[in-house]
Amino acid sequence: MTDRVLGFLGVGLVDPDVPHLRADDLGVLRGDGCFESVRLRTTGELDDLDPHLDRLARSAAALDLPPTDPAAWRELVGALVAAWDGPGEGVLRLVVTRGLAEGGPPTAYAQLFPVGERQLRERRDGISAITLSRGLTADATVEAPWLLGGVKAVSYAVNMAALRYAHAAGADDVVFVSADGQLLEAPTATVVWLSEGVLRTPPPGPLGLLDGVTVRRLFAADHGLGTETQRGTVEDLRAADGVWLLSSIRLVAAVTSLDGKPTGFDPEADARVRAACGQ
Amino acid sequence: MTDRVLGFLGVGLVDPDVPHLRADDLGVLRGDGCFESVRLRTTGELDDLDPHLDRLARSAAALDLPPTDPAAWRELVGALVAAWDGPGEGVLRLVVTRGLAEGGPPTAYAQLFPVGERQLRERRDGISAITLSRGLTADATVEAPWLLGGVKAVSYAVNMAALRYAHAAGADDVVFVSADGQLLEAPTATVVWLSEGVLRTPPPGPLGLLDGVTVRRLFAADHGLGTETQRGTVEDLRAADGVWLLSSIRLVAAVTSLDGKPTGFDPEADARVRAACGQ
Repeated sequence: MTDRVLGFLGVGLVDPDVPHLRADDLGVLRGDGCFESVRLRTTGELDDLDPHLDRLARSAAALDLPPTDPAAWRELVGALVAAWDGPGEGVLRLVVTRGLAEGGPPTAYAQLFPVGERQLRERRDGISAITLSRGLTADATVEAPWLLGGVKAVSYAVNMAALRYAHAAGADDVVFVSADGQLLEAPTATVVWLSEGVLRTPPPGPLGLLDGVTVRRLFAADHGLGTETQRGTVEDLRAADGVWLLSSIRLVAAVTSLDGKPTGFDPEADARVRAACGQ
Repeated sequence: MTDRVLGFLGVGLVDPDVPHLRADDLGVLRGDGCFESVRLRTTGELDDLDPHLDRLARSAAALDLPPTDPAAWRELVGALVAAWDGPGEGVLRLVVTRGLAEGGPPTAYAQLFPVGERQLRERRDGISAITLSRGLTADATVEAPWLLGGVKAVSYAVNMAALRYAHAAGADDVVFVSADGQLLEAPTATVVWLSEGVLRTPPPGPLGLLDGVTVRRLFAADHGLGTETQRGTVEDLRAADGVWLLSSIRLVAAVTSLDGKPTGFDPEADARVRAACGQ
């Protein structure tokens, strides 16, 4: 079984068990790069590859990285998918780093590996979440491009630390809140809530959030619920008829409790949200 | 000439031109790791290796990384220094990442390479700096360990983006200011200013700043100036008799202009600061 494959842009497939990155790659020395994660269905189809390639290009531009060729990515991705024979769903991860400190081209590669058990379980069973401050005021990044709001950089140490903090507290995930009390996003997901029959999510641009591919699919789908992009608070989540964290691999995870208290849940709305996101 | 050497903890010296990191190392996928940079003098002595090893251990602990052995680091560092024959000063960089996503030991290595021309020039000639918002309120990290205040994580994308922003604006460096107007730190340095004959620097703990090794050396030295750890503002820098950015490799860089306006400069104090920092 070949359920872990790796390829470099402009090179093609390579052995994933062999080191291919130099120790002085700025991706690891400075977390200086960007990435995307794309779901491979059991049918062999990729979810939203083009929107992910678009977002990768936007992240790279925001980091002043040279552009990479979408056609070359599609060719590499095709080779990875063809070589893969994992039994379940896969995660396609695309990575671009600034390359070596001494200069030269960016480091660009893609890997394909199985979706983790934890993600599948959380997708099925729902999650407990806690709210944590992200420290920044809600609008901090708007006129501060150096803060990289909305850029999917590989500098995810704070996101990972927040998840570890949640796990240590017995919760599964985190909803980040701004210093001034506004809902932001989860460390690796977008927040959506339902109230008065309308699905709502915070506006990514003004709040410096990642522009979620899965929430875009949900909001564009025909599910019979209204949709609204609007600012919110933790109180809105508490009063909601449903809260979900949406992401490209775990897809729809229903938040069953927030800060230890049960959240509202509407089974019919939940089914509609899941269907619209491709579950 | 061997002016670039690399070694892995528990392994020893390896060829720096050969890839040694796997593409799925969490150091590059998530910026999930920590680092230190230590100056190697032309005399072959390292500046403050023990405080840097201590800080690396504190960063690793804050990231829930398993501890590494200081004695093993010293042995590896000794081998690197012995193998190096660069003509000038060197940068010793120590890196620890979480290792592979599938689990296993952390990735831990050290490299030794020449100090860059730019850093030597800025040390000699001084720098222009601009102030930029760090987005966070000054005390945001105190009760929020997941924000990793004071942790030298490899997730430096925002620091690097801020430096690129400064360079594009024609400046050399950045002084970060909190959302509520307090002086924080530079992307890779500590801020020090002189007023009323006293050297001053913001308190690292309460503000979530990196606990600077070089500023500690300065504050402990016998330079005839007073020292005070205290909060400050941009106005304090404007009114100061001298402003410096201190870091382990560039050491003392005098800030000659801030946001386009000349800053105060006291040649005698500058000489004392430089001497105390080992220049």
